[in-house]
Amino acid sequence: MLVVVKFGGTSVANVERIKNAAQKTAAKKASGYDVVVVSSAMAGITDQLISYLREISKGYSLREYDQLVSTGETANIPLITQALIELGYEAESLTGAQAGIYTDSNHSKARITSINTERIRKVLSEGKICVVAGFQGISSISGNVTTLGRGGSDTTAVALAAVLKADLCEIYTDVDGVYTADPRLVRDAKKLSVISHEEMLELASLGAKVLMPRCVEFGMNYNVDIMVLSSLEDKPGTLVTSKELNSGDLRQRGVYVEEKIENMEKMVIKGVTSDKNQAKITLRELPDRPGIAADIFSRLTKANVNVDMIIQNIAKDGRANLSFTVPKTELNTALTAVNTLIAEIPEISAEADEDIAKVSIVGVGMLSHVGVASTMFQTLSKHGINILMISTSEIKISCVIDEKFTELAVRVLHDVFISGAIG
Amino acid sequence: MLVVVKFGGTSVANVERIKNAAQKTAAKKASGYDVVVVSSAMAGITDQLISYLREISKGYSLREYDQLVSTGETANIPLITQALIELGYEAESLTGAQAGIYTDSNHSKARITSINTERIRKVLSEGKICVVAGFQGISSISGNVTTLGRGGSDTTAVALAAVLKADLCEIYTDVDGVYTADPRLVRDAKKLSVISHEEMLELASLGAKVLMPRCVEFGMNYNVDIMVLSSLEDKPGTLVTSKELNSGDLRQRGVYVEEKIENMEKMVIKGVTSDKNQAKITLRELPDRPGIAADIFSRLTKANVNVDMIIQNIAKDGRANLSFTVPKTELNTALTAVNTLIAEIPEISAEADEDIAKVSIVGVGMLSHVGVASTMFQTLSKHGINILMISTSEIKISCVIDEKFTELAVRVLHDVFISGAIG
Repeated sequence: MLVVVKFGGTSVANVERIKNAAQKTAAKKASGYDVVVVSSAMAGITDQLISYLREISKGYSLREYDQLVSTGETANIPLITQALIELGYEAESLTGAQAGIYTDSNHSKARITSINTERIRKVLSEGKICVVAGFQGISSISGNVTTLGRGGSDTTAVALAAVLKADLCEIYTDVDGVYTADPRLVRDAKKLSVISHEEMLELASLGAKVLMPRCVEFGMNYNVDIMVLSSLEDKPGTLVTSKELNSGDLRQRGVYVEEKIENMEKMVIKGVTSDKNQAKITLRELPDRPGIAADIFSRLTKANVNVDMIIQNIAKDGRANLSFTVPKTELNTALTAVNTLIAEIPEISAEADEDIAKVSIVGVGMLSHVGVASTMFQTLSKHGINILMISTSEIKISCVIDEKFTELAVRVLHDVFISGAIG
Repeated sequence: MLVVVKFGGTSVANVERIKNAAQKTAAKKASGYDVVVVSSAMAGITDQLISYLREISKGYSLREYDQLVSTGETANIPLITQALIELGYEAESLTGAQAGIYTDSNHSKARITSINTERIRKVLSEGKICVVAGFQGISSISGNVTTLGRGGSDTTAVALAAVLKADLCEIYTDVDGVYTADPRLVRDAKKLSVISHEEMLELASLGAKVLMPRCVEFGMNYNVDIMVLSSLEDKPGTLVTSKELNSGDLRQRGVYVEEKIENMEKMVIKGVTSDKNQAKITLRELPDRPGIAADIFSRLTKANVNVDMIIQNIAKDGRANLSFTVPKTELNTALTAVNTLIAEIPEISAEADEDIAKVSIVGVGMLSHVGVASTMFQTLSKHGINILMISTSEIKISCVIDEKFTELAVRVLHDVFISGAIG
């Protein structure tokens, strides 16, 4: 039996917490698992290193950035290893390169291309706990150190769990699981005991901060069960799995299943999320000619802008209006790209709206349940919340609304779909 | 033309100093040199990392220690590299492993076994400044990260200068050169403009802290000229060379040669040093049988004690007394080893004296100058300083004296041999 356990920055923020992480790890080893640990840098270290670099130069080399920030994780793994040795367990630390984690050369957001598990398997076969630096790898082309970008340590953990065919990947973090809504917004938000990869992927993409979408995607593609747990409290967490598990299976895997929660598993809607990092651009007076939309979106793609929702209305005079949403942080870049088109076709006008938010409900099987969409729209409407744009997929419905209604919308949707369903 | 420049911890202690180090480096490149930079960690970082490890465990794994402390140097090299890029120079950072610095597996005090210069030469051939992490290497046996022990970054610099056949190795530090005595003890101590490797090795071994003996030894064996310079002030430093150079040669190499200093070069004695890290052990009533001394010293060698001076007196009754000095820090270990002998031969008694110091004068050709030794002994005697032990080599004379006379002895010897000689 093999488990990969991953500790985030707040879970290893100082020596006391490192000792605590070592204890959780040791308990796993004592219960008969082979254990691979993946660690982030101490919370705050990465930012400190980057601030040095920014003091030196505004536009820094990404190769040197990776060489620099990767030291944060590298410094942590010997500390965890030593804490394990102190508890009486044999352990050995490996950097990304030593662990055989090969990536492309896309510095600061590299992708894992392959993992050579020889060294890790050797360490494990010697009965040792293997402590691997998260977030980092080595370019298979240049031999340079690379980093994986935001949420990179989670990706390291899930990728190792996949390639080592681990029974489970445990992610220890500063929240104790995945909730049906942000508990700071919705007082009776419930912790989910189980959620599917697909649902988790939607929740993560739609603004839930527990896991990065990329890591969930990896878990989905390689069928890795991921358990999200608090490193600070000893509480049951949330299991992300695509296996069909009954309460008995779940209890065996350490998932806490009470009656009410079992009931909740039958709920269609697993979570309500919101995302305020949204802006809307509306283009008016577009000439109705073939390829005009493609032209706009290829300019945006070239500028590296991520377009989310799109709505087009054909106006009566044969001219069209087009609205689309982009992350607020990419609004200026998007407007610059749009202006290159306006320079060619001056009758087009553009306007931007930053005061919007996206609220979404997520749940597998939603489309086969009659009335979910209409219930959502009616609920928002009943509370005076105007819907500006809608997008749907098989497992989610998102509505763009006025930003000021965000918290209200999350609360009323949670009431109707979740608190109401299990009340 | 190739130069290796090395910056110590205080010379890169913060972003401002890193920028300053980059400017000194850039000036070298601008004057036509290919440049390899070797950097220490920011002053204080290494100690901080070690303190974390000590909080976790008292007897830590040396492999993990190396994995940890090497991150200090690794974090600094991208910062220096970025500062060079900001000044308009192309540069690339390399860890010890990336730079091909192979060592044995003797963690925390590894020795360099070979250097594969391929990667460094590639970086240089692209016109870039190559910035290498000091103090660290990779074990050619295990592939683990190793560190070189105290003064390790100087060793990295001199070793790279040797293998790259550099024209010069510049060591930037927080003192501005090598002095004839510690300027804090002797007010008119003079900075030497030139000193031979042999003399520097003796000075370093006898307590002068500017360069570690190991690094000077490397320079001597591979005939690398080493220039010791201040990174904080723009002053001429001290050139360590074994070449016979006249004033013209020296000026060409950037050595500051004023008339007085030229005169000084003719001095026989180059420096006066003291070392208070000394303790003396005296064994009495040793039976006069063959092999007894060998027996004692083999016990000390097994205990890893470094014995320095030895004196033996045969007493009248056929019993001998034996005195030897060891570093104060090894006194307890030495006494434990001695007690194993006393357990076998109980009539032997041992006593220890920690209140001693060693003062030394250093200079090539000393033995061929009549009267140097007798002048030293007379000078000490004239000031009421008793000589407890004496040892001599071709280029130095050391006397063990009462610790309380240390500063006085250094001052009066400096007066007679150096200030007097050039007064």
